[in-house]
Amino acid sequence: MTQPDLDQLCVNALRILAVEGVQKANSGHPGMPMGMADVAYTLWNRYLKANPSDPLWPNRDRFILSAGHGSMLLYSLLYLTGYPMTLEDLQHFRRFGSKTPGHPEYDPELGIETTTGPLGQGFANGVGMAIAAKHLAARFNKPGYPIFDHTIYAIVSDGEMMEGATHEAGSLAGHLGLDNLIYLYDDNEISIEGSTNLTFTEDVPARFRAYNWHVQEVDGHDLPAIARAIETAQDAAGRPHLIICHTHIAFGSPNLHDDAHAHGAPLGEEEIKLTKEALGWPYAESFFVPEQVLAQYRTLVVRGAEAQTAWDDMVARYTETFPEDSAELQRLLAGQLPANWADALPVFDPSDGPLATRAASGTVLNALAPVIPELIGGSADLEPSTKTFLKGYPAFQKDVPEGRNFHFGVRELGMGGLLNGMATYPGLRVYGATFMIFSDFMRPAVRLACLMKLPVTYVWTHDSIFVGEDGPTHEPVEQVMSLRLIPGMTVIRPADANETTAAWKVALLKKEGPLALSLTRQKLPIVTTPGAAADGVPRGGYVLSDSPLEAIDIILIATGSEVALALEAQTHLADDGIGARVISLPSWELFEAQPADYRESVLPKAIRVRLSVEAGVTIGWQRYVGLDGASIGVDRFGASAPYKVLAEAYGLTTANVVAKAKELLST
Amino acid sequence: MTQPDLDQLCVNALRILAVEGVQKANSGHPGMPMGMADVAYTLWNRYLKANPSDPLWPNRDRFILSAGHGSMLLYSLLYLTGYPMTLEDLQHFRRFGSKTPGHPEYDPELGIETTTGPLGQGFANGVGMAIAAKHLAARFNKPGYPIFDHTIYAIVSDGEMMEGATHEAGSLAGHLGLDNLIYLYDDNEISIEGSTNLTFTEDVPARFRAYNWHVQEVDGHDLPAIARAIETAQDAAGRPHLIICHTHIAFGSPNLHDDAHAHGAPLGEEEIKLTKEALGWPYAESFFVPEQVLAQYRTLVVRGAEAQTAWDDMVARYTETFPEDSAELQRLLAGQLPANWADALPVFDPSDGPLATRAASGTVLNALAPVIPELIGGSADLEPSTKTFLKGYPAFQKDVPEGRNFHFGVRELGMGGLLNGMATYPGLRVYGATFMIFSDFMRPAVRLACLMKLPVTYVWTHDSIFVGEDGPTHEPVEQVMSLRLIPGMTVIRPADANETTAAWKVALLKKEGPLALSLTRQKLPIVTTPGAAADGVPRGGYVLSDSPLEAIDIILIATGSEVALALEAQTHLADDGIGARVISLPSWELFEAQPADYRESVLPKAIRVRLSVEAGVTIGWQRYVGLDGASIGVDRFGASAPYKVLAEAYGLTTANVVAKAKELLST
Repeated sequence: MTQPDLDQLCVNALRILAVEGVQKANSGHPGMPMGMADVAYTLWNRYLKANPSDPLWPNRDRFILSAGHGSMLLYSLLYLTGYPMTLEDLQHFRRFGSKTPGHPEYDPELGIETTTGPLGQGFANGVGMAIAAKHLAARFNKPGYPIFDHTIYAIVSDGEMMEGATHEAGSLAGHLGLDNLIYLYDDNEISIEGSTNLTFTEDVPARFRAYNWHVQEVDGHDLPAIARAIETAQDAAGRPHLIICHTHIAFGSPNLHDDAHAHGAPLGEEEIKLTKEALGWPYAESFFVPEQVLAQYRTLVVRGAEAQTAWDDMVARYTETFPEDSAELQRLLAGQLPANWADALPVFDPSDGPLATRAASGTVLNALAPVIPELIGGSADLEPSTKTFLKGYPAFQKDVPEGRNFHFGVRELGMGGLLNGMATYPGLRVYGATFMIFSDFMRPAVRLACLMKLPVTYVWTHDSIFVGEDGPTHEPVEQVMSLRLIPGMTVIRPADANETTAAWKVALLKKEGPLALSLTRQKLPIVTTPGAAADGVPRGGYVLSDSPLEAIDIILIATGSEVALALEAQTHLADDGIGARVISLPSWELFEAQPADYRESVLPKAIRVRLSVEAGVTIGWQRYVGLDGASIGVDRFGASAPYKVLAEAYGLTTANVVAKAKELLST
Repeated sequence: MTQPDLDQLCVNALRILAVEGVQKANSGHPGMPMGMADVAYTLWNRYLKANPSDPLWPNRDRFILSAGHGSMLLYSLLYLTGYPMTLEDLQHFRRFGSKTPGHPEYDPELGIETTTGPLGQGFANGVGMAIAAKHLAARFNKPGYPIFDHTIYAIVSDGEMMEGATHEAGSLAGHLGLDNLIYLYDDNEISIEGSTNLTFTEDVPARFRAYNWHVQEVDGHDLPAIARAIETAQDAAGRPHLIICHTHIAFGSPNLHDDAHAHGAPLGEEEIKLTKEALGWPYAESFFVPEQVLAQYRTLVVRGAEAQTAWDDMVARYTETFPEDSAELQRLLAGQLPANWADALPVFDPSDGPLATRAASGTVLNALAPVIPELIGGSADLEPSTKTFLKGYPAFQKDVPEGRNFHFGVRELGMGGLLNGMATYPGLRVYGATFMIFSDFMRPAVRLACLMKLPVTYVWTHDSIFVGEDGPTHEPVEQVMSLRLIPGMTVIRPADANETTAAWKVALLKKEGPLALSLTRQKLPIVTTPGAAADGVPRGGYVLSDSPLEAIDIILIATGSEVALALEAQTHLADDGIGARVISLPSWELFEAQPADYRESVLPKAIRVRLSVEAGVTIGWQRYVGLDGASIGVDRFGASAPYKVLAEAYGLTTANVVAKAKELLST
């Protein structure tokens, strides 16, 4: 068999496996894998630098199936090239607990670099990965020692080109000149509702050129042309690469070729038979892979092992020549923080206040920056307000890849996707900042961080109606609570500067899952001691000030800026002979993870007179106050006014807390 | 005074008013109004077709300050041109209850066409307005009777060009060839963190040309050039228009000109003095408007009244010639539905089931389409799944503006912004559809619909983990609850086809505020009668099936697909001598709006043994079950598997409801 014939057999094997996997699951997306099989085979067979025997090799190329619905393409490639994926796994596509769910789920040990499905997110993740690779290269590479020199590949789709995230990430990638990014665009001109002509007639090549991308167009079924385009991209420095692959969805299917119906439904047994005939695939048996096909794909095992061995050797020489850099590299790859880093954490006393928690956060970040070099991040064009700039460090730019400050631009969703991609790299502790209100824009990416358990820290400032003059469009009301609803999210709303320090410590110690800091615009008094905060915040909730009287008549539960209110109310209530315990509850998730006896010690079941105070929606607080308690909050939109005026108008005052407490006690 | 001198004085009056308003409020954004004053004056003084004495005139041009932070520009224009806005209002900028909040808030009676501030949203709203104008023109214009022939103008900013919403809406506007759109881009090359060169170096003109926009570039301080560009845009048919205005932020300020610090902070009294000198503004007094300036601006009052009178005359002639069309037009302008429309609502009986509520919704929509011609909408590339296509009606396209079906493309956030713009028009009842999981992408626009009280209907299907095989990226868990948190939102999660019909009736009767339908992918039995559903759904919650035994031992509260589970559990519990009342609670918001005695009759305070069942997060349900009840839900991510497998794995089964009910009763 000639190599071209073998190549064609390999491509068709990929098509058929994908189609049969979908058929067996009786659900899935066969059209895309059939259309992109030529491109995927070419990339994986000839160019992808990765080691199926050690999928975690740090300098591997990253492959992202951004069009995640074509997951059978990826699973088939992983099986064929020798990753820990079996034919049986392919046959269990979309079954409960399988390695082959409907959309790829982040599992780098399996060769799955990110979770995809929501269109545009994989595209943005790849940009974040390219940034991470450039940054690590700048930190560790030395002349003759290209420790990090890999490429980020992705397959992206028509639908993604329509998504806003793609614009945001694409524009920034072009600005940053990320030439380690090679995206293969499956331009099949079909989306779910039919031809892309129904809604999508923009000139994509011109658009990406406008973003400063290097754009090529090829016939996506012409293997040599695909190969030439990839090589051209690899050689052209200074810009990210888009290779527009003109393809036919469901290529090979006589009746569904170029048809939107092939997008999201099995072909059917009969059409599979016809497709095999049309493709000249002689094997009637399902899930059959000819020996020579498997052998061809499995060349990656050898190629990858050789590449990694050469890299290991280089790292060994690097270790001899640059022992300090190497030790730092090994620390990062092991996911360890520097020794004694926590000693740098600042403490605050009342004379430091009043201080906005966003300002305290800026102090913490700048205290940690010198001792945690992997701490990097930035803001979506709000750093003067979010206080997230690391002073004295450069900004990451095309010519400054060592920069630790990021100007993400007014691109919140793109920032979210970039942060996820960056966080998949060992050796980066990333944060991203904007106003809490704009967490709404980031939500799809935040959810994926939760699903992927990525340790991203969100710095969301201006976290209540106390934004004040900017008015309701800028005043979060429902955001903090709605973030608590996302499985796997940890939200911390610190009461003052010391709780902010403690919150950052929790964030940096966290190995898995994102953490959101909900920080104030307005100044707050220092109401905790460093010790109480350091002890209490990791537990999520604690008795900040117990009843000054013999009895606990009422429990006041507050978070963030409202803790000071609760403390003031406690004093007033005591004057009237009412004993109030004040609980600071900065993190529901951390509190719920405590042992039952600890939670009982803070919030005794027997005391049902409970009042929560938080400047946000009250739905949800019934979890702690029940049907017998009450909640002070904000169940309507904010308004434009100085924040002290709003406090009165919205009842976020000591007087109202006292009044509500008395009302509760009198019923 | 020559006209050019007077024009310059008018422009500077606008600058100074804006700057003084910000100064008096001691907060706000002076830089943008100073930079765009020349453009704004030229547009409002020479071209804007609007009537300050009747801001609601249906055929007025729409002006959107998409860069909403420059709100003092808009407020100053409204005062100067004679809208119901006074100098005193300008002096109350950013005060509680004023007409002049920090960012413009939708108030068409005041001349404020949409709420802006979150960047990119006003841009998308304008595209929706342009669609609405084209559609109404197609419905009502006749040769010689251009009932609707107005233009949508907007001022957009650098920050917005970075936002994804702008990409989504811009690409679609180009596809649709919306030549009634003229956007003036304030290209001042400054954003909050500094020069746009830090993060934004894309070629905007090339990008918009790639979208099929007609692009011009002008010096934004050259009045005749601005005028020529606007006229060129008005005359060039077939494409939307972007006029890139090269401006200087804080134009006129000697020390803050071109400086990011002028973006979001008052200039200071001293700098205002210097600015007045630099601009040759001879008046030291604050908020002073020379008589001849006011006279010049107020020419809009005469021009607008004349234009409206001519239009009124045309409509009168139209009424004589086309009495039926005119009656229909008057009905729409009055915001009335056609007579007897509700007679078309379908009813279902058990033999029609099992039926997915998305399918029932499709049946309702198609039954209503012929009788409610203003019912229009579409899907973000998912209509085969969301069942939202109006069969037999064309799709809205450049050459088919009468189309009622919309192919929004894979542009969820853009769709949200477009729907808001469309909904500001009388005579359109709009809906937009996608999967519930992707409501996350739409959230910023949904929030604005709530804030603006726009009657948009969202059709969000595939509303739980019962999506099944597509897996956790496509399975909503926290979405339904998080939508309930947004002030002003109404969520309805119908239990079956009859509740779906009733929900659509509520949606169409709603005059203010958006409504979300949460619909299933999977089939559901018909468990309600048309009468019970029609009576119960508008109340939000009702006793669907009372305890079959003498006592009410437990209350089961369920929504949507879980209502059938609760009913089955009720039967099993009765067999074991336990009396369960089953409440269907499709809408929390509608239920909470009922009189207390009705709520008490459904959910008696005395019965504390309560169990909620909803396939979503349980945080929030404590509002109804308290600390003594329990909730069955989904507090982790979903998984990829056939949905019946997930039901078992996640405990969403009759057996588990029965077991949890017994457990509750035994404690």
